[in-house]
Amino acid sequence: MLYFANDYSTGAHPELLKALLDTNDEKLPGYGEDRLCERAKEKIRRACGCPEAEIFFLMGGTQTNSVALSALLKGYEGVIAAQTGHISVHEAGAVESGGHKVITLPGREGRLDAGTLKAWLGDFYGDESREHMVFPGAVYISQPTEYGTIYSLGELESLSAVCGEYSLTLYMDGARLGYALASPAADAGLEDIARLCGAFYIGGTKVGALCGEALVFPKGAPEHFFTTVKQKGALPAKGRLLGAQFDALFTDGLYLRISRRVMEMTELLRGVLAARGFRFYIDSPTNQQFILIENSRLEKLTKEVVLTLWEKPDAEHSVVRFAADPSTTPEDIEALDAILAGL
Amino acid sequence: MLYFANDYSTGAHPELLKALLDTNDEKLPGYGEDRLCERAKEKIRRACGCPEAEIFFLMGGTQTNSVALSALLKGYEGVIAAQTGHISVHEAGAVESGGHKVITLPGREGRLDAGTLKAWLGDFYGDESREHMVFPGAVYISQPTEYGTIYSLGELESLSAVCGEYSLTLYMDGARLGYALASPAADAGLEDIARLCGAFYIGGTKVGALCGEALVFPKGAPEHFFTTVKQKGALPAKGRLLGAQFDALFTDGLYLRISRRVMEMTELLRGVLAARGFRFYIDSPTNQQFILIENSRLEKLTKEVVLTLWEKPDAEHSVVRFAADPSTTPEDIEALDAILAGL
Amino acid sequence: MLYFANDYSTGAHPELLKALLDTNDEKLPGYGEDRLCERAKEKIRRACGCPEAEIFFLMGGTQTNSVALSALLKGYEGVIAAQTGHISVHEAGAVESGGHKVITLPGREGRLDAGTLKAWLGDFYGDESREHMVFPGAVYISQPTEYGTIYSLGELESLSAVCGEYSLTLYMDGARLGYALASPAADAGLEDIARLCGAFYIGGTKVGALCGEALVFPKGAPEHFFTTVKQKGALPAKGRLLGAQFDALFTDGLYLRISRRVMEMTELLRGVLAARGFRFYIDSPTNQQFILIENSRLEKLTKEVVLTLWEKPDAEHSVVRFAADPSTTPEDIEALDAILAGL
Amino acid sequence: MLYFANDYSTGAHPELLKALLDTNDEKLPGYGEDRLCERAKEKIRRACGCPEAEIFFLMGGTQTNSVALSALLKGYEGVIAAQTGHISVHEAGAVESGGHKVITLPGREGRLDAGTLKAWLGDFYGDESREHMVFPGAVYISQPTEYGTIYSLGELESLSAVCGEYSLTLYMDGARLGYALASPAADAGLEDIARLCGAFYIGGTKVGALCGEALVFPKGAPEHFFTTVKQKGALPAKGRLLGAQFDALFTDGLYLRISRRVMEMTELLRGVLAARGFRFYIDSPTNQQFILIENSRLEKLTKEVVLTLWEKPDAEHSVVRFAADPSTTPEDIEALDAILAGL
Repeated sequence: MLYFANDYSTGAHPELLKALLDTNDEKLPGYGEDRLCERAKEKIRRACGCPEAEIFFLMGGTQTNSVALSALLKGYEGVIAAQTGHISVHEAGAVESGGHKVITLPGREGRLDAGTLKAWLGDFYGDESREHMVFPGAVYISQPTEYGTIYSLGELESLSAVCGEYSLTLYMDGARLGYALASPAADAGLEDIARLCGAFYIGGTKVGALCGEALVFPKGAPEHFFTTVKQKGALPAKGRLLGAQFDALFTDGLYLRISRRVMEMTELLRGVLAARGFRFYIDSPTNQQFILIENSRLEKLTKEVVLTLWEKPDAEHSVVRFAADPSTTPEDIEALDAILAGL
Repeated sequence: MLYFANDYSTGAHPELLKALLDTNDEKLPGYGEDRLCERAKEKIRRACGCPEAEIFFLMGGTQTNSVALSALLKGYEGVIAAQTGHISVHEAGAVESGGHKVITLPGREGRLDAGTLKAWLGDFYGDESREHMVFPGAVYISQPTEYGTIYSLGELESLSAVCGEYSLTLYMDGARLGYALASPAADAGLEDIARLCGAFYIGGTKVGALCGEALVFPKGAPEHFFTTVKQKGALPAKGRLLGAQFDALFTDGLYLRISRRVMEMTELLRGVLAARGFRFYIDSPTNQQFILIENSRLEKLTKEVVLTLWEKPDAEHSVVRFAADPSTTPEDIEALDAILAGL
Repeated sequence: MLYFANDYSTGAHPELLKALLDTNDEKLPGYGEDRLCERAKEKIRRACGCPEAEIFFLMGGTQTNSVALSALLKGYEGVIAAQTGHISVHEAGAVESGGHKVITLPGREGRLDAGTLKAWLGDFYGDESREHMVFPGAVYISQPTEYGTIYSLGELESLSAVCGEYSLTLYMDGARLGYALASPAADAGLEDIARLCGAFYIGGTKVGALCGEALVFPKGAPEHFFTTVKQKGALPAKGRLLGAQFDALFTDGLYLRISRRVMEMTELLRGVLAARGFRFYIDSPTNQQFILIENSRLEKLTKEVVLTLWEKPDAEHSVVRFAADPSTTPEDIEALDAILAGL
Repeated sequence: MLYFANDYSTGAHPELLKALLDTNDEKLPGYGEDRLCERAKEKIRRACGCPEAEIFFLMGGTQTNSVALSALLKGYEGVIAAQTGHISVHEAGAVESGGHKVITLPGREGRLDAGTLKAWLGDFYGDESREHMVFPGAVYISQPTEYGTIYSLGELESLSAVCGEYSLTLYMDGARLGYALASPAADAGLEDIARLCGAFYIGGTKVGALCGEALVFPKGAPEHFFTTVKQKGALPAKGRLLGAQFDALFTDGLYLRISRRVMEMTELLRGVLAARGFRFYIDSPTNQQFILIENSRLEKLTKEVVLTLWEKPDAEHSVVRFAADPSTTPEDIEALDAILAGL
C-alpha cells in the first residue's frame, strides 16, 4: 500500500534518530533541565531572533494548545478561533475541559480574517450585556490551517494589530509550521511570527520528530509555567527525548530542510494530481492537498493507497486528503501516478 | 418612569411574600430538608403527573443550568444548544467553566429544530474522527426561548424522540416556563414536559418569586445530586426561602394564575403596540415582545419608559424588548399608550 | 421541641423582613445594580473604614468561598487552611471542583497559627522540588472558626504579616462574623479585619438574614469579578433580595445589635449548662457551645431538644453543639434549663 | 560524576532503542491504532492473565494518574491516598486541577493500611453530614511506594476487599512496578495485581523506556476512555513510540529482566552502603535506598556522586536517596565504594 494518509505515519527522521542514539547513554537530569534541552532552546531563540524567549517542550499538539491556553487565559476569558480551528473541532473539548469557551467566528478556508475579528470585538465591547458573556482573552490561529492554507505576513500583522488593540494574546498553533515556512507561497518567517504572536509552537511530530512541540513565549512565559506543565501531566521525566530531537531539528537548519524537501514532494504530488485531471478542492500551498473524486474511483484508489477521507460534498463525490511527509519519496509519487493512470 | 425592561424588576408576588411572612418564625431544619420544601415538591410532582420525580430548589437560572448539566454530562460529553441559547451566550461560560463544550447548532427564532438536530447527529456518528471530538450528551432547549417563542407539543415530541434514539438527555430551561404554559399558543403542559424531558426547571424568579428555580428530574436525579448541589455552591442553608415560595406557587394553581395574568397584560401590550403601528420583530406568543423602532423615536421613548435594547438591525433602527411581569397593571399599559401616542 | 441545632433555623430577622416588604413593589434594575445594593455597599464600606472597598453580595457561604478563591488563586496555586477548615471538610470539595488544592495544616481548636504557617512556608520554599508541588496562593481562616473559637487581633496581625511576607491573600470566612465581633473575648473589629485581610465576607445567613453574604475586597476586587460571579452561577437576577437585607443589617448597627443579643442568649445558655454540671468540650467565646454528654442522657435530651451531634470521643459519650441564634429567647433558655434539670 | 540520583537519567534500554530503530520506517496508522500497540497490548494481557483487559499507553506518570482518575471518579467523588502519595505531594495538584479532592490518610513508610482505610470509611459513612463532604470514589496506592516499600499480597488483598465492600476502585500507581515485582521481598505478581485492582499502570519511563506507561483496566475501561485521553492532551499522534517500546518490554520477559538486573545492582549497592556503616533510614526492598548521612560527609560525597536530597531530619544530618537504574553497572557500585571509603 502507498501511504499518503497523513504526516505522522513513520517514526523519526534519521538525523533525529541519530541524535537520540548518540546521547542515549549520557546521564542527564530529568524534567527538561538537561543540556540538550538548553541547547535546543538556545538554537530556537536564535532562529526566532528572540534572545529573551522562554521555551518549553511538550509532547503533542492538543496538549500544547490546552496547556498554553489554560495559562494564558483568565478564568472569565475564552479564546477566539475560526469555526474550523483544531481546538474547536478535533481536540475533544480539551480547552473547555480546562474551563474556557472557544468562541468561534466564521473563517475562510481555515483562516480567521482580521476584519471579521475586529468587527466581532467591536460588537462585543459595544454590547451592554457583555459582562454576562465570556470575555475574549486570546485568539487562536493555525499556520498552516487545518485546510493547508497559510496566513501571509500582512494578514498576520493585521491580526496582531487587532489583538494588540484589544489586549488579546495572539496564539499560533504550528503543528505543521515547517510547511508554512517552506511553502513557496510563504512570506512570514519565524522571526515575524515571534514578533507578532504572544505565544506559538513549532511542531515537531508532523515535521519528522517522534513526538514533541516547542512552545515559544517570545516575550516571556506565564508565571510558574513549569508547574502548570507538570500539573497538566505534560512534563516528561526524560525531557532529553524532546531536547535531543529539537536540538537536531535546529542544527544546520534541519527543520527547514525537512520541510522544504516535503514541499518538493508536494509539488511533485500536485503535478501528478493535476496532470491526471483532478480538481483541487482547496488551493493549499502546503503539504496537505485536497482533491475532489468520484466515489467509484475512490473505492478503486483506496485499494492501493491509504488516504484520509475529508468530507462528502454530495452523494457521488468525496474530498480526500493526500499528505506528503518527511518519508515521502519521488518513487512514492511515481507509484501513485501509475495507480492514478489505471483508475 | 414606566418599567417594561424585564420580568424581574419587583420583589415577590404578594402571595409568596405572605408565605414567607407566615412561616418566618417557624424553626425548621436547614438545607432543604424542611416540611415546606417537602410539601412544595409533593405539589410539583402532582402538577407534573410524576410521583417519582426528584426535585431540587436552586437559586437562579444560570446556576440551575450549570449544576444540572455538570451532573448529567460525562467528562467527554458536551451539550447541544441553539446558537442563541442562553447557555451559549449570556451565562458567561458557566457550562464551559464546568468543563463541557456547548455545541451550537443554528436555530430559528431561538428554537432548535428536531430535523437539524437529527441531521447533525447523523453526521457526527458518521464521522470517522468522532472519537477526537466532543460527544453529545444532552440537548438544551429553553421554553419559552430567549426570543419569546415556544415549542409546540409536536416539536417537543420530535426532539424527545431524537434524544431517545441517541441516548441524549433532553434538558429544558424553563426560566419563564409559566409564560409558555399560559401562552394562548401553548399546547404542551407540565405533564407533557415531564414526560418528554430528562430534566427541566420551573422558573420562579421571573414568575413572581424573589429567587428560586425548581429543578425536576422526572425519572430520578443523578446519583448524590444533593452533594453536587452543595459542591457547586448552590445549596442554601435556609432552604425554606425556596420551599415556602414554591409551596405558594403550587398552591391553588398560583403559578399558572400569575402567568395567565401576565399573559393578559401582554395581550393588552401587544394591542397597544400594534394599534400604534409598531412592527413586531419576532412573533412572540409569550411575555417578551420585540418591536422595531426608529432610533429617534426610541430616544424620546426611553425618557419615560425603561426598556431593553435587543439589537441594532441597521443604523437607523433598533429592536427593543418590552416585558410584562407579575407587577404589570392595565394602568401601566394605558400610561404606555399615552406615551406612545405622543412620540 | 426546643431548637438549639444551629443558627439558621428561622427565616429573616423582623427588621430585614420589613426591609424586604417595604421595598418589594419598587421597580429596580437587576443583577445587583439597584440602589439598595449600592446603599448597602456604601454602609459596609463605612463600617469597614474602607472607602475603596469593592463589595459583592452572594447567596451563601460555600458559594462565596469557592467563587472568591477561584478568582484569587492562579491555576497553579492552592489555598492553605486548617485541617478543620470548612472548605477542607464540609463544602463537598467545592474548592477542588474549581481546580485548586486545599493544603491543610494542623490547627488548634479550629485556628491556624501564624507560626505553623510560617514554618510550613519556610519548608515549602526551601524544598528543591517545590516546582512539582502546588504553590500556596492564599490562606483561608474562619472567624469565628468551626469550633466557635476566635482569632485575637494579635493573631490576625501575625497571620497577615506572614501572608504579606509570602505574597499570599489572607481570606476570612465570616459566616458567623457577627458573633466574633460581638464576643466578649473579641478585640478585632471590622476595620481591623478590612485592614488585615485581602478578602473576607460578612455572613448574613447565620446572623439573621434569609440568605446572603457580603464579600468585601478592601483593596479592590479581582478583575471582572462580576463576570466570575455570573459564570459561577452566583449572581441573583433580583439582587435587591440581598441589597435590602444588607442595607437593613448595616443601618443603625443592626448587624452588631443582632449579634450582641445572640451573645447575651449564649451567656445565659452557658450559665445554664455550667450550672447543670456539663463539661465544655471547647472553650468557645461565640454562639456555638460544645458540651460532652453521656449517650444515655443525650438520648433523653434529644426527645425534647433539637441539637447537633458533633463527634463521639468514646463509646459512652458524645459531643453536642448548642447554637444560639437571632430567634433564641430567654424563655427558650429557661425551658432548656427545666429539661436539663429532669435528665 | 557517578550518577545515582534517580532512575530516569539515561535514555532507552538498548532493546527498546532497537525496537524503535527496527520499526522506524514502517508506515503505520496514528493514535495508537497500529500493530505495535496492538501486539504490546496482547502481550500485556497475557502477562496479566487478563484476556479482557483494556490497555492504553500514556506518556508519563502524572498524566496517567490524573487522566485515569478523572475518568474513574464521578464529579462528587475524591480519591483516598496516603499523605505521602505522589498525587498528594509531587504532581502539582493535577488531580485537583481535574476537579477532585485527594483525601489523605496517614500511611506507614508510604503504605496505606487496610485497617486505617476501613476505619475511615466507617467513620465517613457513619457521619450524618457526609452529604456535605467529598465522597470517596477510589483508593490510590503506589507499588512500590514513594519510599521504596512494597505492599505484600496479603496487604493488597485486604485493601482490595475493603474497596470492594465500599464500591471503590483500587488504583495502583506502578511508576516503578518492575522493581516491586522483581524485589526479593515481593509476593504479589502482575496477575495478582490485575485481579485485585480496578486499574493500574505498568511504568515504563523508570524501567528503561524513553517514555510511556501502560494503563491497564483489567475489567474494562471507562466508556469512551480514548476520547478522555485525547481531551486531556495525552494521546500521541505517533502511538508507535509507546507501542514499540512496550512490545519490546513484554517480549521474552524483558520488563522483568530489566527489573531483576536493577535489583541485583541494588543488592550490591545496599551491601556497599551497609559495609561502609551507613544507616538505612527506611527498609526499602526496591531500587530506591535511603540513608542517613552527616551533612559534612554529604558535602564531600556530592562532589563526586549525584544523589537526591530527601529530607533533613535534624540540623546535622540529611537523608539522601540512591537509586539504581537500568544503566547502573557493577563498576558504578565499585566506584561508589571507593568514594565512600575516602569520605
